[in-house]
Amino acid sequence: MNPVDFADKFALFSDQWSPRVVAEMNDYQFKLVRLQGDFIWHQHDDTDEVFIVLEGEIEIDFEEGSVPLHAGQMLVVPKGVRHCPRARDEAKVLLVEPRGVVNTGDAGSDLTASNDQWI
Amino acid sequence: MNPVDFADKFALFSDQWSPRVVAEMNDYQFKLVRLQGDFIWHQHDDTDEVFIVLEGEIEIDFEEGSVPLHAGQMLVVPKGVRHCPRARDEAKVLLVEPRGVVNTGDAGSDLTASNDQWI
Repeated sequence: MNPVDFADKFALFSDQWSPRVVAEMNDYQFKLVRLQGDFIWHQHDDTDEVFIVLEGEIEIDFEEGSVPLHAGQMLVVPKGVRHCPRARDEAKVLLVEPRGVVNTGDAGSDLTASNDQWI
Repeated sequence: MNPVDFADKFALFSDQWSPRVVAEMNDYQFKLVRLQGDFIWHQHDDTDEVFIVLEGEIEIDFEEGSVPLHAGQMLVVPKGVRHCPRARDEAKVLLVEPRGVVNTGDAGSDLTASNDQWI
């Protein structure tokens, strides 16, 4: 029964847009990810997705406008809603979503990361 | 589509051991709670439970020993495992668990909090 230390885990990888699984609760996964620059527009048709900002600032663009998020804030992106995360400077984020969710959702791209990368 | 700001939410309540729901993702809830002192031994027979420490330090006692947790760390308590959280000084924690989970699990007590208290 070991705690997950977010800083210790982030020290183990430096690539961006490549979520690392750090814990599972039932069939949900907790993933750490470094974000910088623009991601791609996508949606997850079967699930909501949670962003918790641990360090820095991000914006999540929606078709109706942008939502800025800084450390100490979280946002639930509802299922089926197109969105595009971005960050000017590198930000550190904790994602919560069901096991098996692909980072680029319905939009395959060079940014599609391997799933289930535990760290 | 509004972010949840943890500090803003904590400013709205001061009672301890009384989780407030701040967000839902699918059928899971994110709850903020202030912890201080000893809780009671209990278990959740149907679900894992996640503790993410946002501020301060807690310990979670298990039958095999104690796990200390500080801000920036998380722990998954597996379903069916007896545990007892405690904190010497007040700590602020984010809980993640399925909708409907009661804070005292199988152990009803004065510390049993109303469910679904949104803030």
